[in-house]
Amino acid sequence: MNQQIGSGSLCFSEAPFILSSASVVGTKEGEGPLGGCFDVIGSDDKFGQDTWEAAESSLQKEALTLALGKARCSENEIRYLFAGDLLGQDIASSFGLKSFEIPLFGLYGACSTCGEALSLAAMCVAAGYAHRAAAVTSSHFASAEKQFRFPLEYANQRPLSATWTVTGGGAFVLAGKEPDGGFPAEPLAKITGITTGKIVDYGIKDSMNMGAAMAPAACDLIERNLKDFGRKPQDYDKIVTGDLGTVGQEILIELLRERGYDISGVHEDCGIKIYDSQAQGTGAGGSGCGCSAVTLSAHYLKLLKNKELSRILFVPTGALLSTISFNEGQSVPGIAHGVVIEAC
Amino acid sequence: MNQQIGSGSLCFSEAPFILSSASVVGTKEGEGPLGGCFDVIGSDDKFGQDTWEAAESSLQKEALTLALGKARCSENEIRYLFAGDLLGQDIASSFGLKSFEIPLFGLYGACSTCGEALSLAAMCVAAGYAHRAAAVTSSHFASAEKQFRFPLEYANQRPLSATWTVTGGGAFVLAGKEPDGGFPAEPLAKITGITTGKIVDYGIKDSMNMGAAMAPAACDLIERNLKDFGRKPQDYDKIVTGDLGTVGQEILIELLRERGYDISGVHEDCGIKIYDSQAQGTGAGGSGCGCSAVTLSAHYLKLLKNKELSRILFVPTGALLSTISFNEGQSVPGIAHGVVIEAC
Repeated sequence: MNQQIGSGSLCFSEAPFILSSASVVGTKEGEGPLGGCFDVIGSDDKFGQDTWEAAESSLQKEALTLALGKARCSENEIRYLFAGDLLGQDIASSFGLKSFEIPLFGLYGACSTCGEALSLAAMCVAAGYAHRAAAVTSSHFASAEKQFRFPLEYANQRPLSATWTVTGGGAFVLAGKEPDGGFPAEPLAKITGITTGKIVDYGIKDSMNMGAAMAPAACDLIERNLKDFGRKPQDYDKIVTGDLGTVGQEILIELLRERGYDISGVHEDCGIKIYDSQAQGTGAGGSGCGCSAVTLSAHYLKLLKNKELSRILFVPTGALLSTISFNEGQSVPGIAHGVVIEAC
Repeated sequence: MNQQIGSGSLCFSEAPFILSSASVVGTKEGEGPLGGCFDVIGSDDKFGQDTWEAAESSLQKEALTLALGKARCSENEIRYLFAGDLLGQDIASSFGLKSFEIPLFGLYGACSTCGEALSLAAMCVAAGYAHRAAAVTSSHFASAEKQFRFPLEYANQRPLSATWTVTGGGAFVLAGKEPDGGFPAEPLAKITGITTGKIVDYGIKDSMNMGAAMAPAACDLIERNLKDFGRKPQDYDKIVTGDLGTVGQEILIELLRERGYDISGVHEDCGIKIYDSQAQGTGAGGSGCGCSAVTLSAHYLKLLKNKELSRILFVPTGALLSTISFNEGQSVPGIAHGVVIEAC
């Protein structure tokens, strides 16, 4: 039996497998420390499209196509897609995935969407609703800047607390046991549990400091996960947040210390991993729905597959920012979704 | 065992109950044919808030508060919320629901979101992931016009094919069997199955004719539902689309006729039901995430509860429109999510 535990966590009796994953990124990500790990690095951030939004859609399309290929799986074997992005009305996902003709649940969790998509896909597979399901998310530096901040042509200065939206799309194919009861061949890892995020609002109003807006939500999520599963931080080889960056990381570690948890020895952040911020001028680090997705695919899943890691808590973090709410003087609430991923 | 059937449908072995629901609407909806059926009709469409977006958030907050009250259920008995709206980055939901502090899955399916939220909440309860879960969606005429079309002050003329975004929020509390194995007291209805929508794009580019953009997706959904469940249109007392309006209804009936299904005798549309378009000047009918939600809550669930209906197929329809994709010359793809609701 799948088990409800604590306040919003689930423990899967038959953990869904991550059968395959793929990452497609832009030039800047390709020049960063993980450059050698991505599946595809675009030579041009427009990816052959006319608009930034269409370029972002192609990240999703490419990533899912690649992940399906790696899983040796055809489109019609995927029963449900769980997908989202940062753009208004999820257009990167709608236009990127429409040609697949797979039943689709559109999601919005800001930069936490990868965690939300993996959670729902895992719930779906673990419940027997689908033998195979896929999770797809993306972000694009140029479409996000246009959506949330300033036109690129304006060349505004950015404070050091600002993060740099990752141009990247990640896709994950999840699967249950084979129809004959056997295990799938060579899965990357398995999802043994999830903890679902609540909105946490500390009243941050600085759209150039998303790390501070998201850290309280990450803190709440990690604390609930540890309590629900009866674990200490050291029970995870890594606790990996999505895109807190250096500013948010410091706040998160301090907030959890106040609550009696020291994660400083096991904490990593995809936003910090993906760029060499000093050399690349990316401020506090990377961000966006694509940041955690491509870093999980290109880096952490490989370490889990090779058994260099045995259990991680993956916590994509989202800042619920919109230009409308921001311009109306509202705060930027945060949310984070936690996924427990273990080596097979 | 819950059963996967056909291409994207599920049949629940223990159908989740709709324990309670609530509808909160604006003045125009209150003056329409269903005026006597809504739980709350605001005396002012700003609902005491400073902005249209905050007004829409209060629709969600009020609707969920009412639905919880009717179910005699406290916030902390709701394990998961599934919610969404039409605004960029789902801000009506984020700001409307943050005070509940319930784990939240943010959704985007345009005006089909009510069907998506009910589907996922039902999947969640039927899998034993939650004893109780809630689905909440909203739309607001003024926030939607501002988001998608023209500022209200511009007083643009509207073609007859245009629909009128419903100001309304709907909430539904879903529940499984009681912990002692008994049935909950006086549920409104139960969700016996779902069919999940695919994106269908017929290349419509007229943002003032959403009915035409959504009808092909509704057609695909209804055809798949009938095939998957082995049913004829007449096996449903009503097939209820979300917001096709009069233009979309005609196209849907014709498209399904071409495929060998005559739904003309059982089809109804929430967008047509909610207004007296002639008298109220609402063009082709009502639309928006709130349209199908409040009409299901105020009208159809009451008929199911009173056994005047025994089985309906509820099909909220969504047009994946964004000003950015629209201004870049993209089409408006459609999606629809189907929920089979039966009397208890």
